Amino acid sequence: MKVINVGLLGLGTVGGGTANVLNRNAQQISRRVGCEVRVHIASVRDIGAPRICETKSFELTQDPYEVVNDPSVDIVVELIGGETLSKELILAAISNGKHIVTANKALIAMHGTEIFAAAADKNVSVLYESAVAGGISIIKSIREGLAGNDISLVAGIINGTTNFILTEMRDKGRSFEDVLAEAQELGYAEADPTFDIEGIDAAHKLTILAAIAFGTPLQFEKVYTEGISSLHLQDVAYARELGYQIKHLGIAKALEDGIELRVHPTLVPEKRLIANVDGVMNAVLVKGDAVGNTLHYGAGAGAEPTASAVVADILDIARALNLSEDSKNAPINVPALAFEAQSIKERKVMQPKEFRSAYYLRVDVNDVPGVMSQLSTVFAEYGISIEGITQKEPAKGELKVSVIFLTQRTQEGLIDDAIEKIQGMPDVLDKVTRIRVEHLD
Amino acid sequence: MKVINVGLLGLGTVGGGTANVLNRNAQQISRRVGCEVRVHIASVRDIGAPRICETKSFELTQDPYEVVNDPSVDIVVELIGGETLSKELILAAISNGKHIVTANKALIAMHGTEIFAAAADKNVSVLYESAVAGGISIIKSIREGLAGNDISLVAGIINGTTNFILTEMRDKGRSFEDVLAEAQELGYAEADPTFDIEGIDAAHKLTILAAIAFGTPLQFEKVYTEGISSLHLQDVAYARELGYQIKHLGIAKALEDGIELRVHPTLVPEKRLIANVDGVMNAVLVKGDAVGNTLHYGAGAGAEPTASAVVADILDIARALNLSEDSKNAPINVPALAFEAQSIKERKVMQPKEFRSAYYLRVDVNDVPGVMSQLSTVFAEYGISIEGITQKEPAKGELKVSVIFLTQRTQEGLIDDAIEKIQGMPDVLDKVTRIRVEHLD
Repeated sequence: MKVINVGLLGLGTVGGGTANVLNRNAQQISRRVGCEVRVHIASVRDIGAPRICETKSFELTQDPYEVVNDPSVDIVVELIGGETLSKELILAAISNGKHIVTANKALIAMHGTEIFAAAADKNVSVLYESAVAGGISIIKSIREGLAGNDISLVAGIINGTTNFILTEMRDKGRSFEDVLAEAQELGYAEADPTFDIEGIDAAHKLTILAAIAFGTPLQFEKVYTEGISSLHLQDVAYARELGYQIKHLGIAKALEDGIELRVHPTLVPEKRLIANVDGVMNAVLVKGDAVGNTLHYGAGAGAEPTASAVVADILDIARALNLSEDSKNAPINVPALAFEAQSIKERKVMQPKEFRSAYYLRVDVNDVPGVMSQLSTVFAEYGISIEGITQKEPAKGELKVSVIFLTQRTQEGLIDDAIEKIQGMPDVLDKVTRIRVEHLD
Repeated sequence: MKVINVGLLGLGTVGGGTANVLNRNAQQISRRVGCEVRVHIASVRDIGAPRICETKSFELTQDPYEVVNDPSVDIVVELIGGETLSKELILAAISNGKHIVTANKALIAMHGTEIFAAAADKNVSVLYESAVAGGISIIKSIREGLAGNDISLVAGIINGTTNFILTEMRDKGRSFEDVLAEAQELGYAEADPTFDIEGIDAAHKLTILAAIAFGTPLQFEKVYTEGISSLHLQDVAYARELGYQIKHLGIAKALEDGIELRVHPTLVPEKRLIANVDGVMNAVLVKGDAVGNTLHYGAGAGAEPTASAVVADILDIARALNLSEDSKNAPINVPALAFEAQSIKERKVMQPKEFRSAYYLRVDVNDVPGVMSQLSTVFAEYGISIEGITQKEPAKGELKVSVIFLTQRTQEGLIDDAIEKIQGMPDVLDKVTRIRVEHLD
């Protein structure tokens, strides 16, 4: 039986999980792929550090170039993160004719184009299923399972930390800061949680999803990104009373005149399946012209769910290598970004003011006669149709009331102009809260 | 640009949908696969019949062997159904060196082993994504996306007709017979609905899912199958009051001592995502040792959702053919049943009395003193632990009351014995209703 040798760059959470899955399921894996797949060598920062996996059956090194340059390694698996050393190592491995598997979403989102071009030159594969939504095989589903469709929408809960925080805020009435502190203790959130809570991690993933769904370039810098750190508990509760859940979504939408790429808190009708995806779980909705709506749900992070996707990529390559005459040179049949490199086409990316969405607006006002009529006049002036209005009772002895408007689908520029005007009204207190609403139907 | 020629056997709902998708998305498809994919010829029963697709760009014939024997056809797509002519045509096409795509679940479940062996001999691919759960790429997800996992459970809503009927019964309080008649009018149910409502269609699909999840042979004859035709409206309502939805599930479970293959109505806790999959939609839950629970949701039937999966299979083959030197002979890298043919292993299939499940039992009794104590004694005698008991109020002027028992997980043989004993008690009226409960956690 042929042996496919894997070299791991990094043996932390995901690297250790990958070694464990390959080891534990070795027998079943060889029944599936017809060859043996084993870890041959792994690089670590500190040889002496404690590990979640056995390390007796393979070599350990502190020099990652030993992995990349090892002539017996067929597939290099990059799990060290970051954009500098990881990129150098991957490019070095490619130039050595190795196939690549990586879980590094930032690297693919920022430098994927360069890496894929290098891989095409050397006729090797670069797979990155684990970079988006952990154990959910969403890259493969879009790239292969839905390849016959014209995809018009991808909308995903693609960051477990923010979804955990939002779920706790809703279920336990706890503030954002309070839940974030707990998430950090539980290890769901990083010590520096900025990437998660400000939506940057989700924007990296959305960048990748949009490219493979639409056949457009990777363009992280064009993603509109808004996090959850300024979300108020009361809006989570009000949304729920109105039949919505607030989810932090990555949304890629194809329209006649361009594409929208945006990451932000979103009201989703509670009857949508994706509105019921709670805690650290992820889910991605994909809408195609033939298939309609599909939903792909699973664990978005964690050692073994992520390893599940890493191993799937390894096995895709192993199957190709095993069936090929030339055991070193058999890339998988699918282009890295789902579309042939020469067919990737720019499309106009919409500016925020051009977005079309429905909106949830909370306006805190003095409860005095005439204020509602003034607000309604402003909406009418900008041609914004209101779907529903809810006025909250003022707290005892207070004059301030919250008024919630749900608008119909309209252009964001008009909403912004209306808000600016409302903000200037004498009876309007505080900043107007604006959250986008997506019906996802 | 290379051209891949498709020959369609059948140009009805799915065949017409396939022609439409290939035609409408031709440009995007060639950007994805790097070649042109077009319908070259299609066989129909009646040349003059009305069509849902244009037929000007390809040849029409009433002789399906013209498709199978056409030297320019690369991929034969079988969409005529049945197990006799379809099998003959597929075997003939294979012996002509054609790759095969089929949506025929009965054929794969009953004759897949023979067909795959013939295909392996001729080094061609047979793909059947559309045979299970329509537009959901569940075959690919299990076979490739989750290939690193030891899969312990597949549980799916894999028949849209039964799910539509159950949803209507629950939401509108309508009887099974009433909703079935409507489903037939709407075209969701066949004129002879037996295959759907008695679970045979679901059992065909479960046969395929179990084989690719566990690496066991296709063994339709060993699937325990129970339909929804004897389901009472009151149980649908009672289940809901208890926090469950009744779903008609196909369940394949791997246990230490064997596998369970069963299709039947099932109480599922309403907080599970799959419990909220309504109407004609399908969803499949897959549990792997690394990934945990995943859910795959989409349309299970209909012209274009099914065509979406048919076209995905065509494109998998087209990509392989396009990249190959030998344009006629490049099977995809993945074995037909996910495991290498020589690695497929028998495992013991459990008899119903060996199933382990929780149970919902409705016992209709005369509301007389002592009856509850007698029932409790029987359960205790068989070592069955009761999770909860609910007694329904008798209808006005009636003595008959329904008592609902939810049991803990136990062996089905014990439940059957207990039911037999209960059935013989003088105060027990009617037949005891037994529905399995799965928590799917």
